[in-house]
Amino acid sequence: MRHIHIIGIGTGNPEHLTIQAINAMNAANVVFIPTKGAAKSDLADVRREICDRYLTRDGVRIVEFEVPKRSIQDRTYTQSVDDWHAAIAQIYEGLIADLPETGAGAFLVWGDPSLYDSTIRIIERVRNTDTCAFDYSVVPGITSIQALAASHRIPVNLVGKPVEITTGRRLTETGLTHESTIVMLDGEQAFSKTDAPDAEIFWGAYLGTENEVIRSGRLGDIADDILRLRAEERARHGWIMDIYLLRKGRDFDD
Amino acid sequence: MRHIHIIGIGTGNPEHLTIQAINAMNAANVVFIPTKGAAKSDLADVRREICDRYLTRDGVRIVEFEVPKRSIQDRTYTQSVDDWHAAIAQIYEGLIADLPETGAGAFLVWGDPSLYDSTIRIIERVRNTDTCAFDYSVVPGITSIQALAASHRIPVNLVGKPVEITTGRRLTETGLTHESTIVMLDGEQAFSKTDAPDAEIFWGAYLGTENEVIRSGRLGDIADDILRLRAEERARHGWIMDIYLLRKGRDFDD
Repeated sequence: MRHIHIIGIGTGNPEHLTIQAINAMNAANVVFIPTKGAAKSDLADVRREICDRYLTRDGVRIVEFEVPKRSIQDRTYTQSVDDWHAAIAQIYEGLIADLPETGAGAFLVWGDPSLYDSTIRIIERVRNTDTCAFDYSVVPGITSIQALAASHRIPVNLVGKPVEITTGRRLTETGLTHESTIVMLDGEQAFSKTDAPDAEIFWGAYLGTENEVIRSGRLGDIADDILRLRAEERARHGWIMDIYLLRKGRDFDD
Repeated sequence: MRHIHIIGIGTGNPEHLTIQAINAMNAANVVFIPTKGAAKSDLADVRREICDRYLTRDGVRIVEFEVPKRSIQDRTYTQSVDDWHAAIAQIYEGLIADLPETGAGAFLVWGDPSLYDSTIRIIERVRNTDTCAFDYSVVPGITSIQALAASHRIPVNLVGKPVEITTGRRLTETGLTHESTIVMLDGEQAFSKTDAPDAEIFWGAYLGTENEVIRSGRLGDIADDILRLRAEERARHGWIMDIYLLRKGRDFDD
């Protein structure tokens, strides 16, 4: 039976790779690399560098494939994501079918496959079509949350307190409901519309890469600086991936 | 100036180590290993194995130190943690003072230093005493959340939905407030007291180690099985570290 390794590769620093990830890559016949778009092109470069550095077994092939764009016209968010996953599943199906019958393939996933990534969902979708028998396993990777916390040298939680991981859209809807709120996938800079000037923000973009930039401070004081910096960085690179933690209160002030 | 590396080492599988972690260990003059207690003894074994495997530079010393127990008598939870951190800070201070004046030390932290771990806080406390100048950096590691998700081969979030990371005590207080709730530090098996029989539970203990055990299913159906299994495993090993995800609803059912 064919086998697929879904491998978390961290957030752009090739040293985020775990030994488990490196071993899984080298156990594959083929490593699949997605391409397309400005962000995708930079990210594909990171994946290629990771392959250059860590693929030590002879005969591991690298196969690039194009990821379709998500269409948002005339459909709800849910439909749009569902259709997009279906389109990617078709591509994965082809890639997997091209593997030797007892061969292995590896998908290199940005961050960790368990957090705001759909590779596992799409692989399950391919399995459910029953066109090509295969099994799969998942190798965890460093997320941008951990990279953010490491660069700021902070714990994400206050002592004994919970943490919420959410999206920009939901932050705008709900406001800050937790002492620690991590916001990912925020295309609308929800922090600047959040009425919590005394919260602290710990922000970072391109975490783990040579372009990494971080800022922290009282939200009311630095929200505008971050907005400006974010716009500049985005213009310069043609894309941006950023993340932030909003924190209210302090350790031990129950 | 002295330098301290706070290094996340993952959850017990030596292959969770990242290249960055291995490089940081080898950049240190001394690697510090905490000992004491049944859990601590097994965990110290993992740390020793990690040192055996990955310390390749000659002359890196390993120094073991005892971690004091947290006293809970006659004080609030907050006081108890604060006192405990103060006691550990004194020990760290001694370890750091014993480093060569421009030398480096490494603390190997279970999981990731940013999540329910106080090494960063305690190191900051030592810095604030100003008795011995040093700088420090943080290397992220695989958390038990990621190990849990990888072993169950699941994303922790539903598409576009938030995730709460919380403790057993808080789950009991608040109940399930999110589609995805990850519970750590649960000494009271709060899942069994949660009135959500139709939620799915994804449970795991000793994740990443050879003793790893996982279970998943409808909470109403398997809560008792997990309680029994957890008690057995705990009796067998003399300690247990477990974690679970509770999930309500499905992808795309908005």
